Amino acid sequence: MSEQAPRTLLFGVGLGPGDPDYMTVRARDIILKADRLVHFCKRGRRGNARVTADAIIAPDTAREIELAFPVTTEVPVEDQGYSGPIAAFYDAAAERLADEMQAGRTIAVLCDGDPFFYGSFMHLWRRLAHRFPTEVVPGVTGMAGAWTRAAAPITWGDDVMTVLPGTLAEGELTRRLVDTDAAVIMKLGRNLPKVRRALQRAGLINRAIYVERATMADQRVERLSEKQDDEAPYFSMILVPGEGRRL
Amino acid sequence: MSEQAPRTLLFGVGLGPGDPDYMTVRARDIILKADRLVHFCKRGRRGNARVTADAIIAPDTAREIELAFPVTTEVPVEDQGYSGPIAAFYDAAAERLADEMQAGRTIAVLCDGDPFFYGSFMHLWRRLAHRFPTEVVPGVTGMAGAWTRAAAPITWGDDVMTVLPGTLAEGELTRRLVDTDAAVIMKLGRNLPKVRRALQRAGLINRAIYVERATMADQRVERLSEKQDDEAPYFSMILVPGEGRRL
Repeated sequence: MSEQAPRTLLFGVGLGPGDPDYMTVRARDIILKADRLVHFCKRGRRGNARVTADAIIAPDTAREIELAFPVTTEVPVEDQGYSGPIAAFYDAAAERLADEMQAGRTIAVLCDGDPFFYGSFMHLWRRLAHRFPTEVVPGVTGMAGAWTRAAAPITWGDDVMTVLPGTLAEGELTRRLVDTDAAVIMKLGRNLPKVRRALQRAGLINRAIYVERATMADQRVERLSEKQDDEAPYFSMILVPGEGRRL
Repeated sequence: MSEQAPRTLLFGVGLGPGDPDYMTVRARDIILKADRLVHFCKRGRRGNARVTADAIIAPDTAREIELAFPVTTEVPVEDQGYSGPIAAFYDAAAERLADEMQAGRTIAVLCDGDPFFYGSFMHLWRRLAHRFPTEVVPGVTGMAGAWTRAAAPITWGDDVMTVLPGTLAEGELTRRLVDTDAAVIMKLGRNLPKVRRALQRAGLINRAIYVERATMADQRVERLSEKQDDEAPYFSMILVPGEGRRL
């Protein structure tokens, strides 16, 4: 796609949090021009990044490569049952993309949020970026979409911000929540009851905001203390906005 | 700008890390249409967000409002000499924008990175958002620009990420660095020698990457251990990439 040598073949493209208007100009240009559009998904479902791209490009089976995860996020990653198949999946996916690039075709991997922030793309990148000219396009993170739509500036002045996976043990979560000014808790899913208890123990339950599918059509924002159920889909997180220096 | 009532008058627009191609589609649309373009700057210098917008809109004195900080970042914020004048500055700036909006004009405040992540805009937002219909547009953060250009995926698997202001005391910085998987250290400036010592004490000096003006024309990326001087301009930060689960 570039006029410079060597020609870039692999693009990791951040599509942002879900609202297609939050795609960058660079992301849009690459998606419109790449020979192959790649996205991760669950078996039988289109991935969220690809749905976001619908705003600018119709489904086009000749151009598209779906990478369907062999196991779902419900299997704990600590299990051998997860890490083995998933590593083999990334190996096979990387070789499939390598074949395309060896044939001279440019590849755009569509990524939720920012590619280098907890991104599945990173597992392809470490297999391919040393072999093929690569460009990564940063994106608006899901958490930035969340704090924007929650009308909750996340860090003020000299606030320390901690990003915590909800997979941590309850005591560990509590300790880290007590020790930070602002927090973002990701990977909720079935961890939500535990995360709720940690926020309670840390004295932060009344500052916690639950955000689901931020910037997408079916977005939900509510105080965690008012959320009745413990359902938390993949695109959900909890924000504890900082309370640092107001000028 | 919107066809819906009430008409949105105040826009806080994230312009991303500096490369104009990393502006979002929504940011571009708002900048092209707003009646007034507002940006923060130092006296006598155009602000970085406004320079980024040069790619899509020429300087236009009739439309522009410069908000020049009365004191520079070199004065510690703890000083009364800083917080008093700066609060008065935000008060006056908010009233100036309120006058424009009362006259029916739409205002786009151009923000570096993301408006709600350590943004100066937040100080206008808390003075104005309850008075005027407001839309905030998230942006690619400076730190995402930095880890992208450093080719350094920042968080893997269940990594905990901590964002630290370089203004913290050395012991506090060291303690928090030891206790995290990935770190981003902002607000370097004259804090760099102290930050360097903290990274050394935390055993992280060889993982630390120094990034200056990421995604801008004069970007610099180098290992902190190889950086000879202790100069660090406003748009600089240090990354300690996580080493979590590789699949």
